[in-house]
Amino acid sequence: MNMARRIAFIGTGNMGGALIQLLLEDGYSVTVWNRTAAKAQALTAAGAQVARSANDAVNGAEVVFSILGGDESVEHVFCGTSGVASAMHPGAVHVGMSTISPQMGDRLARLHTEHGSTYIACPVFGRPEAAPVRQLWLVAAGERRTFEQIQPLLERLGRGLTYLDESPAHAHLVKVAGNFLIASAIEAMAESFTLAERSGVQPERFAEVMDQVFRSPLYQNYGRMIAQGPPEKVGFALGWGLKDVKLVRATADAVSVPLPIADVLYQHFTASVARGRADKDWIAVGEIAREMAGLRSRA
Amino acid sequence: MNMARRIAFIGTGNMGGALIQLLLEDGYSVTVWNRTAAKAQALTAAGAQVARSANDAVNGAEVVFSILGGDESVEHVFCGTSGVASAMHPGAVHVGMSTISPQMGDRLARLHTEHGSTYIACPVFGRPEAAPVRQLWLVAAGERRTFEQIQPLLERLGRGLTYLDESPAHAHLVKVAGNFLIASAIEAMAESFTLAERSGVQPERFAEVMDQVFRSPLYQNYGRMIAQGPPEKVGFALGWGLKDVKLVRATADAVSVPLPIADVLYQHFTASVARGRADKDWIAVGEIAREMAGLRSRA
Amino acid sequence: MNMARRIAFIGTGNMGGALIQLLLEDGYSVTVWNRTAAKAQALTAAGAQVARSANDAVNGAEVVFSILGGDESVEHVFCGTSGVASAMHPGAVHVGMSTISPQMGDRLARLHTEHGSTYIACPVFGRPEAAPVRQLWLVAAGERRTFEQIQPLLERLGRGLTYLDESPAHAHLVKVAGNFLIASAIEAMAESFTLAERSGVQPERFAEVMDQVFRSPLYQNYGRMIAQGPPEKVGFALGWGLKDVKLVRATADAVSVPLPIADVLYQHFTASVARGRADKDWIAVGEIAREMAGLRSRA
Amino acid sequence: MNMARRIAFIGTGNMGGALIQLLLEDGYSVTVWNRTAAKAQALTAAGAQVARSANDAVNGAEVVFSILGGDESVEHVFCGTSGVASAMHPGAVHVGMSTISPQMGDRLARLHTEHGSTYIACPVFGRPEAAPVRQLWLVAAGERRTFEQIQPLLERLGRGLTYLDESPAHAHLVKVAGNFLIASAIEAMAESFTLAERSGVQPERFAEVMDQVFRSPLYQNYGRMIAQGPPEKVGFALGWGLKDVKLVRATADAVSVPLPIADVLYQHFTASVARGRADKDWIAVGEIAREMAGLRSRA
Repeated sequence: MNMARRIAFIGTGNMGGALIQLLLEDGYSVTVWNRTAAKAQALTAAGAQVARSANDAVNGAEVVFSILGGDESVEHVFCGTSGVASAMHPGAVHVGMSTISPQMGDRLARLHTEHGSTYIACPVFGRPEAAPVRQLWLVAAGERRTFEQIQPLLERLGRGLTYLDESPAHAHLVKVAGNFLIASAIEAMAESFTLAERSGVQPERFAEVMDQVFRSPLYQNYGRMIAQGPPEKVGFALGWGLKDVKLVRATADAVSVPLPIADVLYQHFTASVARGRADKDWIAVGEIAREMAGLRSRA
Repeated sequence: MNMARRIAFIGTGNMGGALIQLLLEDGYSVTVWNRTAAKAQALTAAGAQVARSANDAVNGAEVVFSILGGDESVEHVFCGTSGVASAMHPGAVHVGMSTISPQMGDRLARLHTEHGSTYIACPVFGRPEAAPVRQLWLVAAGERRTFEQIQPLLERLGRGLTYLDESPAHAHLVKVAGNFLIASAIEAMAESFTLAERSGVQPERFAEVMDQVFRSPLYQNYGRMIAQGPPEKVGFALGWGLKDVKLVRATADAVSVPLPIADVLYQHFTASVARGRADKDWIAVGEIAREMAGLRSRA
Repeated sequence: MNMARRIAFIGTGNMGGALIQLLLEDGYSVTVWNRTAAKAQALTAAGAQVARSANDAVNGAEVVFSILGGDESVEHVFCGTSGVASAMHPGAVHVGMSTISPQMGDRLARLHTEHGSTYIACPVFGRPEAAPVRQLWLVAAGERRTFEQIQPLLERLGRGLTYLDESPAHAHLVKVAGNFLIASAIEAMAESFTLAERSGVQPERFAEVMDQVFRSPLYQNYGRMIAQGPPEKVGFALGWGLKDVKLVRATADAVSVPLPIADVLYQHFTASVARGRADKDWIAVGEIAREMAGLRSRA
Repeated sequence: MNMARRIAFIGTGNMGGALIQLLLEDGYSVTVWNRTAAKAQALTAAGAQVARSANDAVNGAEVVFSILGGDESVEHVFCGTSGVASAMHPGAVHVGMSTISPQMGDRLARLHTEHGSTYIACPVFGRPEAAPVRQLWLVAAGERRTFEQIQPLLERLGRGLTYLDESPAHAHLVKVAGNFLIASAIEAMAESFTLAERSGVQPERFAEVMDQVFRSPLYQNYGRMIAQGPPEKVGFALGWGLKDVKLVRATADAVSVPLPIADVLYQHFTASVARGRADKDWIAVGEIAREMAGLRSRA
């Protein structure tokens, strides 16, 4: 697929940076841009070219990836009269990997159609450390014909991919609902580990059993983290977790779906932020369950 | 381990019946008893001997297994002046697999000590259909020396076993807390699937993605069930699920641990029973989330 | 206070209309405007003059009242380069009675300062039927000197008034938090009445006792409504109740305050709307508690 | 009503003691008993006679009042082969004022019928300080003919009385559900006051407005307490509040009624106890809402 030899990548955070490395490894020419330029600069060593503006970055690119912080960032960078969408090459494809609302996905799709380009939503599942070892899972949606053209490119970025349907909003919905399901597992683990600890069971042993019950890398990983206490090294910040919980609440509100567990999550994430833990790893949300049970917080 | 060649098994429900089959396959002589005699009778074809009373069943047995319906059944059968505990052979071992409160586990341990026998708590994780293919996970606790004597026997009954410590109550606590964690996953799945469906995403596709995100047989299995709607064939009845939720609430209350998610579960399980669904598979608890979102219940 | 002889009133819904009548009774000249003109027209019989636009209405008015549907309506009518704020007479006072976010209150205050006018927040408590009999309670905040000038005018509009402080946002906050407290009382009543009914207690008798326990007109009124079932005649629509619950959630989110009871309210109001009850009286939110307990909904 | 000139009173805590004083003021001869004898002794100054046992106390009494700590105390004192019910004079009336489960009310009714005596349930609403000024509200249920005989006696004990019907369980249900409604108001107040404080509104001013909105002595009293922080002097201990919340959860469970707000109450009362506040006034439950919002607890 020659057309994709020239790629632009907007947003070079933990996840974006790791994916750019993979694209460079696969031999693509990648031009990057990031609001905080220093982060982009670090990728030159790996072969990336750094553009002075987002619009410069997409100049000549057949495929434009983006991973930004949410609806507001995406709107700021892509929409508007001088936004990236208007600067993209007609016929180019925007692969949107940000965690955004389905509504914003719809809006991007319309915007690109207006400019003769195409929007393929393609959020990813996995912690940032899964990216360099190609262990992410991708969820794509959008015009099927366009998707099929870039499918080989996308499939190299993780251990697999699910293509949903032609509505980009659906891929964003799946990401939002999936993050909610993951956060629910963390809160439920925190509650059950607190019960175990208060009852005299060693948290590590409880984690071992739950690992065997669920046989899920995710439960294994988070179970260990809860047993040991929040890590110093932050994989995903609690403040971003709150943002995701707010996003699922807003998304569910748009279709009149009450989510009692999302409300428990909201209460505990908000309490965590109110207690000064926005910059801890999001596993630290579980410390609220501990404090409510009279145990010492470890965050 | 010759001493275990003669085994008694009290309680021949779905799970008990399957385990008895495994013991017979392994060459043990198994005498069984069940309150509803017909269920016990069905096991004679496989080689089990049926006792006329629980006390008869344990006569001469070195190892006595039990899987009964909860604290009340266990108390009724094992405690009291003419209970099974008093009828057991001194030196025999009671392997308690029922889902009971940690407090009842402690009480059984004391009772057996008084009678010169030993109580090893050993609840199991897995749906009944996992038992015949030796795919359960066992969690044991109690006197280490005694446990080690029967360990080879126990290990044959599943794909693995975790030995916790010398307090039998701890194994029951892990079972109670683990069931809570599983039920939490079901409720969270039901909520997120409802959001997906109301947003136009095909439930089957959402299930596929969540299967890849969690890579857990449990999420795979329940995800599929939620996508398709509650099955006709009941693996685990919703009424028993409510009993388990009440058990975790009581267990947590005993150590002053608030469990907000257990309360959501309680609300939805109770509403399900109030709406006449006690005899459906417990996955049907998720229909409440659907109804609250204005979708049709499928149960 | 001569300056207030000429009054403009923006928004002539149930509450606005009743207050306009009171102002006319008190001898003020009142010019009104409403987006749906028909509602304004009905007030001409009582002596109001109907303006063709909101900007026309405020021309020459010393005091401009507003009761609109929320932040969006207020923004649409008052803000922007051709908004009412810019059309108001310098030195005039805007008395904002809408249920809006504290943030919007702050914004209006700044906007009026820029235009040489003043914003006094003055939301009211009470059902619409309390307005004509001057039984509302007013909560005012804003520049003290200006407030004192219009205090006699305001005090005539209800049975009393609380002046908070110089920050208009605070009066809006009190209204939002107070509505939340009222809605909480309704939900808690609905739950306790459901328990009483399912236990065989006559709802009317339970209402009588609660009336004596709380000795509150509000509990008396809502208790009777819950006992009898939602009324045909809608005093305050459930859909507006959901809007208020969303407003308190957003307001609390802005200061990181988790409100578990607001989340219960949100779940039940949203479920009510999802089940087609947006146009019922908001007391009908209690039917969810009934349905969850296996009772028949009466809405 | 001569027959009631001789009264026994079982349980001389805060509430019982105050009611005994009223009965003595009204000229009745009152024999009292309390598990902790010292409390009973203090009433001799007012004219009460102290019995050495509960059975002695009821000897010759036509009316036996009881206010004990809950189901267990009532069972211990009244039931069993040597319980007070068996010691009571045939034809005597037991007026049960304890906060107990409806089930225990039914059981007492049957027990008294077996012994030829009658059970009239008559719990009271009001804080202990309302008793000496005859401001309690009584809720009675049981055999109508018997109730009418003691009605004049009961009516003197408060500002009024509601007679429900012939089922004593119903009066206990109303007490349990009513306490739940009061506790719900406290929690909702705590949440809304926290929101007000975090938004910069003076709690005292917010209390003033809510006092005007609800016009309820209860909201006035608790609103002031929440604004000022938990009092040193404990009117009703938080640990007893948790007991009441557990009672309403158990009562609702018996009839399959989910109570989401009771679950929020349970979580916060349990967390309060886990954090060492069982002996504070129950208004201190609201400190959890403050802590979850990052404010300092005042308890």
